[in-house]
Amino acid sequence: MSYAETETASQPACWRRAAALADDHRAVLPAAGERVAVVGCGTSFYMAQAYAALREGSGQGESDAFAASEFPHGRGYDRVVALTRSGTTTEVLELLDRVRPASRTVAVTADPLTPVRDAADDLVVLDFADERSVVQTRFATSALTLLRAHLGLHTEEAVRDAERALAEPLPEGLPERTQFSFLGRGWTVGLAHEAALKMKEASLAWTESYPAMEYRHGPISVSTSGTATWMFGAAPEGLAEQVRATGAQWVESGLDPLADLVRVQRLALARAAAQGLDPDAPRHLTRSVVLDQA
Amino acid sequence: MSYAETETASQPACWRRAAALADDHRAVLPAAGERVAVVGCGTSFYMAQAYAALREGSGQGESDAFAASEFPHGRGYDRVVALTRSGTTTEVLELLDRVRPASRTVAVTADPLTPVRDAADDLVVLDFADERSVVQTRFATSALTLLRAHLGLHTEEAVRDAERALAEPLPEGLPERTQFSFLGRGWTVGLAHEAALKMKEASLAWTESYPAMEYRHGPISVSTSGTATWMFGAAPEGLAEQVRATGAQWVESGLDPLADLVRVQRLALARAAAQGLDPDAPRHLTRSVVLDQA
Repeated sequence: MSYAETETASQPACWRRAAALADDHRAVLPAAGERVAVVGCGTSFYMAQAYAALREGSGQGESDAFAASEFPHGRGYDRVVALTRSGTTTEVLELLDRVRPASRTVAVTADPLTPVRDAADDLVVLDFADERSVVQTRFATSALTLLRAHLGLHTEEAVRDAERALAEPLPEGLPERTQFSFLGRGWTVGLAHEAALKMKEASLAWTESYPAMEYRHGPISVSTSGTATWMFGAAPEGLAEQVRATGAQWVESGLDPLADLVRVQRLALARAAAQGLDPDAPRHLTRSVVLDQA
Repeated sequence: MSYAETETASQPACWRRAAALADDHRAVLPAAGERVAVVGCGTSFYMAQAYAALREGSGQGESDAFAASEFPHGRGYDRVVALTRSGTTTEVLELLDRVRPASRTVAVTADPLTPVRDAADDLVVLDFADERSVVQTRFATSALTLLRAHLGLHTEEAVRDAERALAEPLPEGLPERTQFSFLGRGWTVGLAHEAALKMKEASLAWTESYPAMEYRHGPISVSTSGTATWMFGAAPEGLAEQVRATGAQWVESGLDPLADLVRVQRLALARAAAQGLDPDAPRHLTRSVVLDQA
């Protein structure tokens, strides 16, 4: 069994632990009313998008998400939240260095012994959710769960839904599809982007991801009888019918959207296995991107 | 010849006209220092991203871009700029209705007789850049050129580069690639997204698009000897070498990035022609998305 499979399966337990830590870290996480930027790279950037939309949507203050490399340095933020599994990613470390001390910084990381320890003002350590696989699963979802719990938006039902997502069979015919489009609205847009990335990293699939209402503005043109369109959370009215009219498979569930992401992780691993790919060591990727310094 | 081909070829002339109009519209376009949101759907959203990054990057004020359907309604903006070729897109009209009168609104449109006339406070009309093709080319790039000229960032060199982009041969071997990844930084991220959309709408290609520094955080895994990676503007150090090491074709040019987008439009049309597809009537798409009102 790959590390990725073991780590994926451990998510319900990790989420319970992460949620329980939210109160302990209250003093270093964004307070209501603060203007906040949330940053990361790759999977962490997509979790940043989900958290920023959840936070602003719940009325706790303006919250922007940026890929660390695209941070708009002219702006002022009360606090910058960095998500970094390894604590070594070059763009994140450079960004933290540059925004201090104007912004208070907090890093959510799996490894308290890496350079992010000195780069951020505060640390939230989720070492129990660290991973051996290059492809991230449980660290990312546990970090989001902790942040969601801090916002008062985590429920035990989300954990039970993740257990269901691990136990129940995937929709029939899905692994054989040739193209996958993932859609979200609000905080689930970030989940859609992460789902697309997971599928391409682990199984080299042709995947796309969009805010759901954007799908009709061009991307639906690639949908056909060989493809699948997967909605995170509630779908816009009429969209399921329009997608089915293209011949594509429409996928949605009543699960908590973060638990629904677990189903995509399983799909990605199933497709990887069918192709003889190793999700612990995907093509051209390393666990953390550390760039040569000029 | 398709409308799309004729419209693509007319861009240098359209850009000159659009740039010349910037001064006439100075009173209704964002003033320096204003906090601005730029909105659109599909191609217009990607142009909004490019303009917002250009504006903020030039020190003229905070500028955010949103898909119209994902606008964060709790926020206050001095001005909302809507890009809408048809002036009929449901999400844009609903958004303009909702942000007035708290924000001053201006719509850039090709058709002054459509509902956006009543929905926005101010109009900028680029009727000479209107299009018959469903797939947008010259309206989008002319709108961005006008906005760029208003920022003082348009040059005649960009127009001459567009003429070169139309006249010179495309890089060899490109139409035969099976996957295309487009990359940008800052304002060219929006151009990368538009390039990817153009290729999929017109030629049903597998395309992806990212901020360039994000490419190493996962997406590079799909690159292989059959694929191409296309950089808009200056590339991050070392990236060309890393992409070539995957076997992929690396594409960049010294052209103005907006002119480089014209090369992608040509590539999309060439691929469409080779497959017998009609870019004026792409699969599952209409010229404007008008939703049934509940």
